[in-house]
Amino acid sequence: MLSIIETRRRIEAGELAPAAAVEAAMAAAKARNGDLKAFASFASDSAAAPGAGPLAGVAVGVKDIIDTADLPTEMGCAAIFGGWRPRADAAIVDRVRELGGSIIGKTETTAFAYLDPAPTLNPHDAARTPGGSSAGSAAAVAAGLIPLAIGTQTAGSVIRPASFCGVAAIKPSFRLLPTVGAKTTAWTLDTLGLFAAAADDLAYALAAISGRDMAFGDDPAGLRFGVSTMPHAGERSPESEAALERAASALAAQGASVTQVTLPGALVEADRLQPTIYQYELHASLGWEWRTQRAAIPPGLAAALAAGEAVSTDDYDRARGAARRARNAAKDLFAEVDVLLTLSAPGPAPARATTGEARFNRLFTLLGTPCVNVPGLRASDGMPIGIQIVAPFARDSRALAAARLLELAIKAL
Amino acid sequence: MLSIIETRRRIEAGELAPAAAVEAAMAAAKARNGDLKAFASFASDSAAAPGAGPLAGVAVGVKDIIDTADLPTEMGCAAIFGGWRPRADAAIVDRVRELGGSIIGKTETTAFAYLDPAPTLNPHDAARTPGGSSAGSAAAVAAGLIPLAIGTQTAGSVIRPASFCGVAAIKPSFRLLPTVGAKTTAWTLDTLGLFAAAADDLAYALAAISGRDMAFGDDPAGLRFGVSTMPHAGERSPESEAALERAASALAAQGASVTQVTLPGALVEADRLQPTIYQYELHASLGWEWRTQRAAIPPGLAAALAAGEAVSTDDYDRARGAARRARNAAKDLFAEVDVLLTLSAPGPAPARATTGEARFNRLFTLLGTPCVNVPGLRASDGMPIGIQIVAPFARDSRALAAARLLELAIKAL
Repeated sequence: MLSIIETRRRIEAGELAPAAAVEAAMAAAKARNGDLKAFASFASDSAAAPGAGPLAGVAVGVKDIIDTADLPTEMGCAAIFGGWRPRADAAIVDRVRELGGSIIGKTETTAFAYLDPAPTLNPHDAARTPGGSSAGSAAAVAAGLIPLAIGTQTAGSVIRPASFCGVAAIKPSFRLLPTVGAKTTAWTLDTLGLFAAAADDLAYALAAISGRDMAFGDDPAGLRFGVSTMPHAGERSPESEAALERAASALAAQGASVTQVTLPGALVEADRLQPTIYQYELHASLGWEWRTQRAAIPPGLAAALAAGEAVSTDDYDRARGAARRARNAAKDLFAEVDVLLTLSAPGPAPARATTGEARFNRLFTLLGTPCVNVPGLRASDGMPIGIQIVAPFARDSRALAAARLLELAIKAL
Repeated sequence: MLSIIETRRRIEAGELAPAAAVEAAMAAAKARNGDLKAFASFASDSAAAPGAGPLAGVAVGVKDIIDTADLPTEMGCAAIFGGWRPRADAAIVDRVRELGGSIIGKTETTAFAYLDPAPTLNPHDAARTPGGSSAGSAAAVAAGLIPLAIGTQTAGSVIRPASFCGVAAIKPSFRLLPTVGAKTTAWTLDTLGLFAAAADDLAYALAAISGRDMAFGDDPAGLRFGVSTMPHAGERSPESEAALERAASALAAQGASVTQVTLPGALVEADRLQPTIYQYELHASLGWEWRTQRAAIPPGLAAALAAGEAVSTDDYDRARGAARRARNAAKDLFAEVDVLLTLSAPGPAPARATTGEARFNRLFTLLGTPCVNVPGLRASDGMPIGIQIVAPFARDSRALAAARLLELAIKAL
């Protein structure tokens, strides 16, 4: 994979020109796109790469539900948004450009970031899903085409594809990155996320984009890891179960504090009610599409919208209350451990008929807590198995520090 | 003014056809628009008025920063968004249509809902501002052209124009009405609001649109009113100061409990820091406009964007912390009184060179608490002076019940 930090190191050392780095990424992305289908559209070749800024020379892919003034934004649904060109860039797009980053194209997404598969293939096995909904963003980074991609997560749409494709990714704390100009599908859940080669690359990009220090002040070796198998999340593959144990052992072998934790009942209850919130907000957010363009909506999304139409405001308000209680319960949990260690997905990438499930992710999106996918472990057939780090709200730098520690521990296995 | 409830009563009694009600409003709106300039565009005359639904026969004006698929959405800034036509309706637009309401046109707004005046005149005095930023929405209802208008408030953009134009309006609790498809200018502040003839009309429309019961369960005569002069909000006109005292006396004369309250220091501090939050988020939200279309941005907005560019993330995060503390302090305040009674604006509408000031509103937008403007009092020159009711978060029905009580008390003066 292409590392942002290594790219930037070479640029700052004068070994690489920003424009050359961007051109190389563009050429690689175009060459691979016929089979990988990671990109929905490409910027014009003549688009100038800024010569300065912390992201100068960094080629970026942006999920195609995020507005771009100079590229189509088709929402993964050409039947409704075919050829659609917004007037303005989304806030994250403008920010990346302000920092010198070059948006070389829009990445494929499932329709309106829901579950119906995108055309993208998994770089590790063309028969498997790359996951969703940020399918193209995960696949493009995993295939080594670009060092940074932007995605969104409403349930598990960043961490799951990162797990399936074997890349690092962060879903930051809720609202750390403003979603202005990203298509809203659920206003209390939609969260922007980043894909990159490793935790350090994520930290570099997130610090630049958010304007916050992502260096971890304390000694990361002192972090207390709480392992949760999340039994409420249901079935998972035995190989994934074993991978979580290996990750915990690897950390312990490096001297980290690792204990087993049980998620409080309030978190389990909030997880159970997450679909109520998502479906209600999805239906309200896509009201125009549902009422006027129904025939063009794919079946998975249509079922969710129909379910959302049936959710009462009382049920929605009760579920939101449960989410508030869970956020308080999470504070108690994080008094005992510094970060959680869980699976990122129920198993390695399944076949392409689905995009997999968000059972290990949706709770944390609802809580608004930062989550990082740590790649490096693999199933016996070579497919990636991701491990998820979860930190308290607004402790994004801690989540990244813990992820780096786990990366090193896995490498030392 | 046109009352939603009276319009609906006549329709349900068979005295009025929905299409006739909408046509009459459209004709009146078009006839007055040459001088009033309340509407930025009109729907086609052939647009069918639905025959059924709780808003059937209700002609609605929608602020022109809110997306409509069949009408331009120019953001009050034709230099950048001239002729812009979104692909989808905003959630509120779709919801109004689903309920049978007829959107007869888009209402004038200041550019990007900031302070630079819109072309709209105050229906009570063409030399005065109608207020902003929801200028056209307030003026169209005040002039009796339409029974319902949609606006937005980020600081004082619903309550202030309602006060200056002498109409009822509600800024509901934060996120009660999803802002999906409204141009984001500050994601933790932007709130949709409604303008109508009286509190009962607001309650009818808000109940229908939000899907929540807006009937007040308890006896409104038992409500405890806490009067705050809000000294921290600075200078106000003597006639407005007297009007607040008259409102308090009118309530007391009807047997209501009325006491003086002092806003806790945490609220005063949050009010002081509100511009930090607004300017920071404004700059992030309008990043593309600021970086690529600067020459087309009017001077007031340009100054705010420049100020926002200079706000550090540290200062922003500290101000957000102050806002959280103020929300907790507001809970304590509302243990002592059920609603607050304050001025809606520092005085009657000033001359058209400005849109007035949000000094009595911005705190409550930051807190997310429901606010209602109650019209009925006037300055010696006949200009309206609005009184603001503020209720705790999510107690919108209480705010409306208190507003109705005040309306009756003012009528009994």
